[in-house]
Amino acid sequence: MELKPIGTISSPYKRRSQAPFQGIANENESVIEIFDEFVPGLKNIEHYSHLYVLYYAHESKGYHLQTTTPWDTNLHGLFTTRSPYRPNPILVCVVELTKVDRNKLTVKYLDAIDGSPVIDIKPYFTFLDVKNNVKDGLIGKKLRFKKKE
Amino acid sequence: MELKPIGTISSPYKRRSQAPFQGIANENESVIEIFDEFVPGLKNIEHYSHLYVLYYAHESKGYHLQTTTPWDTNLHGLFTTRSPYRPNPILVCVVELTKVDRNKLTVKYLDAIDGSPVIDIKPYFTFLDVKNNVKDGLIGKKLRFKKKE
Repeated sequence: MELKPIGTISSPYKRRSQAPFQGIANENESVIEIFDEFVPGLKNIEHYSHLYVLYYAHESKGYHLQTTTPWDTNLHGLFTTRSPYRPNPILVCVVELTKVDRNKLTVKYLDAIDGSPVIDIKPYFTFLDVKNNVKDGLIGKKLRFKKKE
Repeated sequence: MELKPIGTISSPYKRRSQAPFQGIANENESVIEIFDEFVPGLKNIEHYSHLYVLYYAHESKGYHLQTTTPWDTNLHGLFTTRSPYRPNPILVCVVELTKVDRNKLTVKYLDAIDGSPVIDIKPYFTFLDVKNNVKDGLIGKKLRFKKKE
């Protein structure tokens, strides 16, 4: 199971310390540059407003199976967090597509740092991906609370 | 960028031809068995109702950058589809967690075939993952229509 990048991310976040805990924290834009050989796969993508970006957290070395988060001081199971330090550091972020220029996708709300390899782009579909009645667990409840602040 | 499986999926879909186009098509349950070494990472996961499962489509060899879908006869850019045939065949599915028994997560709505390697489990958070005002593009509009039928 070897991954090959299909593109690379140009981000205003040059280092891990600059990246927001979550991409929705601000309106900064990033540019996803898809390598030429994969450009035919972008046909009609301008019709989609929201995409999943899968990228490789290339600077995230190592992981702990239980970890704290920015939201409290408790130890959480890693798989109940969105920490970038994971056995397979593939991060998933829902972004808003604001501009398409051939192989360049300008997006909002991406939390990746500059130079992250892109692994996949998938459409976000209301029908499949919007869930109601979500029990947001220990961390999600705090995220929701932070939104109201 | 080498992936290592963290678990494996036991699914009622034994072959690709048996898997639904989308997991939400029915209420079938699958069991995600996490390997022992990763079990501490599941701490508190019973508090979460919805998870992202990232799995490797181990039987999906090859891909076309433009492809048809089950929803119409047009050619679509691969990255506007959820086809399992991709440069990096990592599939993302939102599932509902119905039972936790140590290393076994019973879930609904997973579209994986039996034996698929699990790459990651992440919590689905309303705050991050529910998007409104989604322009569902060419395929998403048809999915929505099918839901109403």
